[in-house]
Amino acid sequence: MLSLQVDLGQRSYPIHIGVDLIDRGDLIAAHVAGPSAVIVTNTTVGPHYAGRLEAALRAVGKQVSTIVLPDGEQFKHWETLNLIFDALLAGRADRKTTLLALGGGVVGDMTGFAAATYMRGVPFVQVPTTLLAQVDSSVGGKTGINHPLGKNMIGAFYQPEAVFADVGTLATLPSREISAGIAEIIKTAAVADAGFVDWVEDALPDLLRGDTDTLAEAVRRSCEVKARVVAEDERESGLRAILNLGHTFGHAIEAGLGYGEWLHGEAVGCGMVMAADLSARLGLLADADGDRLRRLVEAAGLPSRAPKLGEDRYIELMQGDKKAEGGDIRFVLLKSLGEAVITRVPEDELRATLATTS
Amino acid sequence: MLSLQVDLGQRSYPIHIGVDLIDRGDLIAAHVAGPSAVIVTNTTVGPHYAGRLEAALRAVGKQVSTIVLPDGEQFKHWETLNLIFDALLAGRADRKTTLLALGGGVVGDMTGFAAATYMRGVPFVQVPTTLLAQVDSSVGGKTGINHPLGKNMIGAFYQPEAVFADVGTLATLPSREISAGIAEIIKTAAVADAGFVDWVEDALPDLLRGDTDTLAEAVRRSCEVKARVVAEDERESGLRAILNLGHTFGHAIEAGLGYGEWLHGEAVGCGMVMAADLSARLGLLADADGDRLRRLVEAAGLPSRAPKLGEDRYIELMQGDKKAEGGDIRFVLLKSLGEAVITRVPEDELRATLATTS
Repeated sequence: MLSLQVDLGQRSYPIHIGVDLIDRGDLIAAHVAGPSAVIVTNTTVGPHYAGRLEAALRAVGKQVSTIVLPDGEQFKHWETLNLIFDALLAGRADRKTTLLALGGGVVGDMTGFAAATYMRGVPFVQVPTTLLAQVDSSVGGKTGINHPLGKNMIGAFYQPEAVFADVGTLATLPSREISAGIAEIIKTAAVADAGFVDWVEDALPDLLRGDTDTLAEAVRRSCEVKARVVAEDERESGLRAILNLGHTFGHAIEAGLGYGEWLHGEAVGCGMVMAADLSARLGLLADADGDRLRRLVEAAGLPSRAPKLGEDRYIELMQGDKKAEGGDIRFVLLKSLGEAVITRVPEDELRATLATTS
Repeated sequence: MLSLQVDLGQRSYPIHIGVDLIDRGDLIAAHVAGPSAVIVTNTTVGPHYAGRLEAALRAVGKQVSTIVLPDGEQFKHWETLNLIFDALLAGRADRKTTLLALGGGVVGDMTGFAAATYMRGVPFVQVPTTLLAQVDSSVGGKTGINHPLGKNMIGAFYQPEAVFADVGTLATLPSREISAGIAEIIKTAAVADAGFVDWVEDALPDLLRGDTDTLAEAVRRSCEVKARVVAEDERESGLRAILNLGHTFGHAIEAGLGYGEWLHGEAVGCGMVMAADLSARLGLLADADGDRLRRLVEAAGLPSRAPKLGEDRYIELMQGDKKAEGGDIRFVLLKSLGEAVITRVPEDELRATLATTS
């Protein structure tokens, strides 16, 4: 088992990474302070893993129940969140009940937001079962739901008690979702760690064939870089925003196609290629580095060409993104593979990138 | 103008109390960091005061818009909260937009929760226009909405940038709501400040006839006591719970009758009398002090006899209250007028109090 600590003062928490961690009731229960825990999962993940997690916690004396949500980004809204509240209240869950998020990013975001707001806050533990959730949503404390007018528009910053990333659960993950997770690993490397970019290029074949040791190491390194960035800027007032590389383009793709059409990681993968094109166009990034990033994204099995939504529609969608402030659109761009910069972009350069990449 | 500071480290904020503060754009704008503000109010308060507050902020160069919610506790739910999100998103409000809560406790709780969760948190300012909101919900950072299975079950601890308690707005407040506000003043005095109990007894006639100087002083002293308690225990892990005197009974009354039948302050006023009866029954409080509290509650124009819901129904309702932990019911009780204690209570004593007071 690999472990690291996310350093946020009183809100610090550990991330443990390994195989079959969901069976380790002893380890998990150490982060369930009260007598009872409620697992929140979905109809896809639940049948595979909820029973094992329940059994592991019961074996160490915890009371456990499970809430099963419908699966998919299209259900990441208030009505589904309310299923959690309904079940918690019907089961008389109190302020000492710990929620366990067992699933991908959608389950993690909704369970985290439910934990942040149920009785004004109860503890929660992340048990991410997709590669994307293991490397992305389990670090950073971002929780929330979508609104018809925008993704993740309603939410809170709320930190888990601990994260257990069981790379054994990735064996049942479709290859398309492995690629989506690798997109976030590439992104984290590209904004902050040139050596990690080299490592990902070398490790890519092993990651794609599902080697658990390589996956665990990729999760560890990715979480470590992200944890370092988040520790410096918990509430995303500055530095942390570099982790949004590819997200302004990516969110526009997701919103423009309708959530769920492309996976979030696919949209971010393509969004990074678009951001690299824009970076090169502005003279920030060498063309060769932009090409190298595009080849890495393609080798990971991710799309590198954006859907044809039209330039005006892209710009409209990006202005609605919450990273826009005061109407201007700011972009996370690259100076090299391993160093990011945040800047406003002239509209004609943006249009040129949209014309070239979509 | 009277002022005090709620001391919560980085989340500290001032409370200003006086007449016609809503016209003081200079003072208020000092707590609106960005270029734009959105006032959230309701159909009762809005026509009286929203225009004045808008004009005051425009005069100092802020962009202002106003969202008007339906008025009443029965609208303190997700659908109404979503009206705020819909309007913010339609108006492209960004992370630097400040929300101003102009109204009573319901507007304050919902606006605060909207601010806590819109784009994972935007700043907000409280402009409470009821006595209850001025003394109660403007200190402590409790925000939230009701769920069909319980009051304030979904929410967050989230602190405002500042509070402007304009006691001039109390002139349009029905006398029943003045009494409801006095209930919270009595409660704050009873749990933590014996001298303040004496003061309230003397000042009661002036408070009831709406003398603004006396009201301002009552708001100041009440906020000061409450701020001191909250500063020691921001997230209600211990001491702060004494501020819930009368609330376990009071919430049961409100839930049992249906929210909105009794005002929150009326339910708390009656709940205090019930808590005093229980305190005396357990030998904690002298009978004479219990009688004195009851007379003060009655003199304030508040009910001192609970509705006949039946003992079993009361107990069922109180077990659903979020202050219950692990199934047991804990009560805030009185040792004297000015000192509270939190304790579990044997069911037969609780039933005796319910039989006597309802």
